[in-house]
Amino acid sequence: MKASGFVTLMTDFGIADGFVGIMKGVIYTINPKAVIIDISHEIQAQDIHGAAFLLEASYKYFPAGTVHTVVVDPGVGSQRRSVAIETDRYYFVAPDNGVFTPVLHNENVLNVVELTEQRYFLDRISNTFHGRDIFAPIAAYLSKGVPMDKMGGKAENLIRLDFPEPEVDQVGITGKIIHIDRFGNLITNISQGLFDKIISGRHFSINLADVKLDRVNTAYAGVDAGEPLAIFNSFDSLEIGINCGSAAKILNSQKGDIVRIKLD
Amino acid sequence: MKASGFVTLMTDFGIADGFVGIMKGVIYTINPKAVIIDISHEIQAQDIHGAAFLLEASYKYFPAGTVHTVVVDPGVGSQRRSVAIETDRYYFVAPDNGVFTPVLHNENVLNVVELTEQRYFLDRISNTFHGRDIFAPIAAYLSKGVPMDKMGGKAENLIRLDFPEPEVDQVGITGKIIHIDRFGNLITNISQGLFDKIISGRHFSINLADVKLDRVNTAYAGVDAGEPLAIFNSFDSLEIGINCGSAAKILNSQKGDIVRIKLD
Amino acid sequence: MKASGFVTLMTDFGIADGFVGIMKGVIYTINPKAVIIDISHEIQAQDIHGAAFLLEASYKYFPAGTVHTVVVDPGVGSQRRSVAIETDRYYFVAPDNGVFTPVLHNENVLNVVELTEQRYFLDRISNTFHGRDIFAPIAAYLSKGVPMDKMGGKAENLIRLDFPEPEVDQVGITGKIIHIDRFGNLITNISQGLFDKIISGRHFSINLADVKLDRVNTAYAGVDAGEPLAIFNSFDSLEIGINCGSAAKILNSQKGDIVRIKLD
Repeated sequence: MKASGFVTLMTDFGIADGFVGIMKGVIYTINPKAVIIDISHEIQAQDIHGAAFLLEASYKYFPAGTVHTVVVDPGVGSQRRSVAIETDRYYFVAPDNGVFTPVLHNENVLNVVELTEQRYFLDRISNTFHGRDIFAPIAAYLSKGVPMDKMGGKAENLIRLDFPEPEVDQVGITGKIIHIDRFGNLITNISQGLFDKIISGRHFSINLADVKLDRVNTAYAGVDAGEPLAIFNSFDSLEIGINCGSAAKILNSQKGDIVRIKLD
Repeated sequence: MKASGFVTLMTDFGIADGFVGIMKGVIYTINPKAVIIDISHEIQAQDIHGAAFLLEASYKYFPAGTVHTVVVDPGVGSQRRSVAIETDRYYFVAPDNGVFTPVLHNENVLNVVELTEQRYFLDRISNTFHGRDIFAPIAAYLSKGVPMDKMGGKAENLIRLDFPEPEVDQVGITGKIIHIDRFGNLITNISQGLFDKIISGRHFSINLADVKLDRVNTAYAGVDAGEPLAIFNSFDSLEIGINCGSAAKILNSQKGDIVRIKLD
Repeated sequence: MKASGFVTLMTDFGIADGFVGIMKGVIYTINPKAVIIDISHEIQAQDIHGAAFLLEASYKYFPAGTVHTVVVDPGVGSQRRSVAIETDRYYFVAPDNGVFTPVLHNENVLNVVELTEQRYFLDRISNTFHGRDIFAPIAAYLSKGVPMDKMGGKAENLIRLDFPEPEVDQVGITGKIIHIDRFGNLITNISQGLFDKIISGRHFSINLADVKLDRVNTAYAGVDAGEPLAIFNSFDSLEIGINCGSAAKILNSQKGDIVRIKLD
């Protein structure tokens, strides 16, 4: 696969402290023709699961040859490995902390390298900011077409995270809220595929706290403003929201809350 | 008008959830040479008036041939139309929800199209994220020079929003606070043009809550730190602020509050 | 030094109000080939010291020929000067308010110009938004290679800020917290150089509020989650943090708090 010059960045650095701008400066210094795209820098501090979730939702929408760079790195300065992955379509760069779990699960992985060749790092490696010192330069060199194999030897047994899977039984499906977005919409781990397979045209109710819904809508505007609804969202996950309102606030719901789909 | 490759984005998506990064991925996949500029992604959720206000303040500062993309879309998934507009100088893409009201009022509109040709959309259209599935690809194709007329038929009777106009009577001008910026400055709907015409060199007072000002300053630093002042801002609107402080907090003022200019 | 087309922006404008997007529109209109990088727009309102601190931490990581643009401008509309600086490696553009203090201290300054030539500004200069009307166009023209000397005459005696220096005595070093980052880490004004010189291998304790630390770690993960530690950060400053937690919150610490290093 050929690098296309596109580099994405996902971190928990926030946008106030200049960390992200500095990473971009490092990338442009090495590859002035790079095109850098922010996915999010508002991953909650040290939330590797959250980063893995967002990476899975986003990486496929980028041009072939994009280098996806994910720096959520509570282990910075410790012995945790720095790794790069090549798939049919993309490069991925991150600390080896499990953030690539969905990529390893979904993609045809061609190569995995532990990043050890210091000539592709900045000259000085700090204790606290490998986003600047290691991951930004590596992403820049990959985006220029430097072969991954020059950056270190093969890496095996990358760390994998557990993601909660919904449970299925006679009663129906029991899932969880795994993400709450900016609008206060509650995203569950119940996919449209699982829903269709289990429900299979039968009557059902979706239950969360006091709310009981007996249908899945196809538009937020399908219910009155202020009313709750269920909908399959743009990532094919069941989402519970409130038209023109925040379900998280109004239903007082949080990440981890249980959502039950009961067959009638 | 010729597309120049510049695309602006304005949404209410926030910057945490990756929605904006995904839109950029879609645009670059279609037009790798696009240059994408964020205007704001912090429009309040579903605040079409706020988006229209900011669009009016900003669109003219971009290169000719820019595609302005505005996705504040409470009607996503419903029957609301998706539209594109061509003016002498720009393209505009958005749901038909009134966000273009100031553009339609100010500009020489050459063409208005309802976006229906699915070959310019992503293959699958979700219920909840037309920013990714429709508006990003349309913006990308427009930025590459695909003619708007290929994307659908003529659209008429676009939705228009009401914007509150200031009232003028014997006493003077009665306006409103229509925006509060990051600094806590209070932006009114009273333009410098209206002010000059009505006041016409006479003595006046500007009244908001307990504050009474008898002049318009030309610099924040024209009053002591902590003191209130009136000034015509960079969009020629009367603005009430506090030097080195937040007028919104200190005067306890909100959007919609009345500002009275009284002739002495 | 030759301009490379890179332009950085640092402001206190926030990202909601469109000010930054408008500055970019102005820059691209003048130099469509510019590459613009945000360093931060979340400098606290009117916090020139904070901007100077972040500029010092970041400017060296950008390609040679970058134009660094810093608009934190409480004096906008007053008689304060607008200035540009050329060093061996970079251009810098800002109001003359002291934000360049560290640059003037660290760099070989080749030229300093007061920006007065209105043909390099927008046609109309507002009272409140010189970021758009003066600094964005100047940065754009510099990034295109227009010589600084065409933009005005030599400027002398730029304003300089005081930065608190740590105090050294028989007992050890007394410093201050000068910045708190997104993670709640407490950054002090005690450099690794000063620390090494004064401590020189002797036993010591680092004291902040109730916390007493007798070593400097090399990784956050070097202590258990929830435990405090001291570390030299990526800018060679002594930083006090809590592994996987916010030191600012847990230790109830603020900017300006005293940090004492005592020799045993």
